[in-house]
Amino acid sequence: MTNETHQKGSPMNPDYKRIKSAGKRLEEYVDGIRSGSRTVLSQAITLVESTRKEHREMAGEILEACLEETGNSIRIGISGVPGVGKSTFIDSFGKLLIGSGKRIAVLTVDPSSSRSGGSILGDKTRMEFLSTHPNAYVRPSPAGGFLGGVARKTREVMLLCEAAGFDTIVIETVGVGQSETAVHSMTDFFLLLMLAGAGDELQGMKRGVMEMADLVVINKADGTNRDAALRAKREYENALSLFPVHTSGWKPPVKICSALEESGIAELWDEIDRYLQMVRKSSYFSENRRQQSVYWMYEHLQIQLREHFLGHPKISASLQAIEKEVENGTKSSFKAASDLIKLLLEQ
Amino acid sequence: MTNETHQKGSPMNPDYKRIKSAGKRLEEYVDGIRSGSRTVLSQAITLVESTRKEHREMAGEILEACLEETGNSIRIGISGVPGVGKSTFIDSFGKLLIGSGKRIAVLTVDPSSSRSGGSILGDKTRMEFLSTHPNAYVRPSPAGGFLGGVARKTREVMLLCEAAGFDTIVIETVGVGQSETAVHSMTDFFLLLMLAGAGDELQGMKRGVMEMADLVVINKADGTNRDAALRAKREYENALSLFPVHTSGWKPPVKICSALEESGIAELWDEIDRYLQMVRKSSYFSENRRQQSVYWMYEHLQIQLREHFLGHPKISASLQAIEKEVENGTKSSFKAASDLIKLLLEQ
Repeated sequence: MTNETHQKGSPMNPDYKRIKSAGKRLEEYVDGIRSGSRTVLSQAITLVESTRKEHREMAGEILEACLEETGNSIRIGISGVPGVGKSTFIDSFGKLLIGSGKRIAVLTVDPSSSRSGGSILGDKTRMEFLSTHPNAYVRPSPAGGFLGGVARKTREVMLLCEAAGFDTIVIETVGVGQSETAVHSMTDFFLLLMLAGAGDELQGMKRGVMEMADLVVINKADGTNRDAALRAKREYENALSLFPVHTSGWKPPVKICSALEESGIAELWDEIDRYLQMVRKSSYFSENRRQQSVYWMYEHLQIQLREHFLGHPKISASLQAIEKEVENGTKSSFKAASDLIKLLLEQ
Repeated sequence: MTNETHQKGSPMNPDYKRIKSAGKRLEEYVDGIRSGSRTVLSQAITLVESTRKEHREMAGEILEACLEETGNSIRIGISGVPGVGKSTFIDSFGKLLIGSGKRIAVLTVDPSSSRSGGSILGDKTRMEFLSTHPNAYVRPSPAGGFLGGVARKTREVMLLCEAAGFDTIVIETVGVGQSETAVHSMTDFFLLLMLAGAGDELQGMKRGVMEMADLVVINKADGTNRDAALRAKREYENALSLFPVHTSGWKPPVKICSALEESGIAELWDEIDRYLQMVRKSSYFSENRRQQSVYWMYEHLQIQLREHFLGHPKISASLQAIEKEVENGTKSSFKAASDLIKLLLEQ
């Protein structure tokens, strides 16, 4: 791997000039990330998130060169609708982990977020502890675009964070879209945050999310709310017992906690730990990761093909009109797709 | 539409020879289907399911020409694991509908089925009533291939059946794979068949399926099993009350029935009818169909692009080796996809 890196970063490589023009040389990025430089990590992440082709190619080279250093972390997905207290929870959870010597990176998948909307500031302010701790790294969702693109970028940012030595990756998502499936397909463990009095809250949650959970946590179990949280715990336990068993064989427990009072948080890590021991013993852990990698190869392929195709001027010129015809039932879905393909491939 | 049909079927059309070579002329197919000929319908379905390019193109022309006659049916998805009694249920349910003057087509999405495995005979024998009734048409799953392909074909078969005058389409699926999502995205109503003593049964069911259901039916509520079915009904009612509300605003009821004794079946249709009245009033029905059409346009596009790409000799020659590298972690998912794309687009 090191050999290849030097070769690619050398002036003898025809790509050298292009790589150089994107800022640092490949090996500067790779060495910086490996040595844990937050500045270089952030710069590399900017390349991943860039819309410029040469930036993305450079990002691909960096990822490839760092590949051996990736994978040595626990990847935890955390979902819950707005108002459930995700940021406070992650801050409190992260504080616990950092206290036990871990290094934690917090990423977000949220296709609806816009960088310019100030979400960086928002996220960082809400995670008071993590946003200033040297062993934590908080990075908001990549800006806009369609879900596949946002999720792809987050997965690559995760790999870079692993190469920079973060051993716990938390990927937060919003619980209202398809983003859960994407986060589920890039993490080892999926934690669902809920509130007691779920009826109203669930209105906003995407169907199917509850069945992905490896752990359901009723947050805000403090003060007068504690009894309601315990009732909700029993209700969810009953509901989950009717669900199909996970492929891993794991039965998702339901716990209560108060992120605000920082109570019940340590018990959650115990559950995650128990899960990890189980799936490592059964080799489900590594098998799942292998399957995820192949899944993402096809996702990348799909995304790149789609970008190549839909981004073509010939296609974008007629796409909207054809979509309208399909919506109105004057053209079949099949014919519409064939017509679009013919536009480009039979030019 | 008729104009266009004649033009396409005329010897002046350069496509005429190709179309002719596939068997009948376009207008013969279209007229045959419209007049409700089962023979012509079956022949057209064979074109949809064919792997030959000219057959599929002809199928596309037929669909396009029949488009105005499609959509006038209720599309019902029915899922449940093997052993739940789907065929007996559909036979009994179909008998009821035919008794009230309906014409019913039963299709299947099952990517694991193989035509040569004798599934036609199997399906037809198990649906004793429907398989011989003139107002019913039973067609098994298109042979093998990946899910997207099988589902696409089933959706097109559904449209042809509608053009042939079937006013109720039942699409059966097996409850163990991703096929539920596909069936859900081409139907108006999703019925999930269950058994009492669900624990064991659910082992085989794909997670997330329960949350798609518009109606949960506990089957085999007969004899000594009736009490257990009533208990299961209450349990599922509790569980479903914790689920997010459907976009349609519909709250999925839980019912019991015995397909064998043909009891409780009429009540199910009452629920479906109540649902239809609600979603037609709110215009959710037509909005959902419009969205489904656009969804399938992009699915077709994805499938056709994928077929075009993965079917290319240059790609298929290296795909397996690259996939292995990704699985073993020696190549990143991103790089693998880029390498594959470069193989074809930068030749």
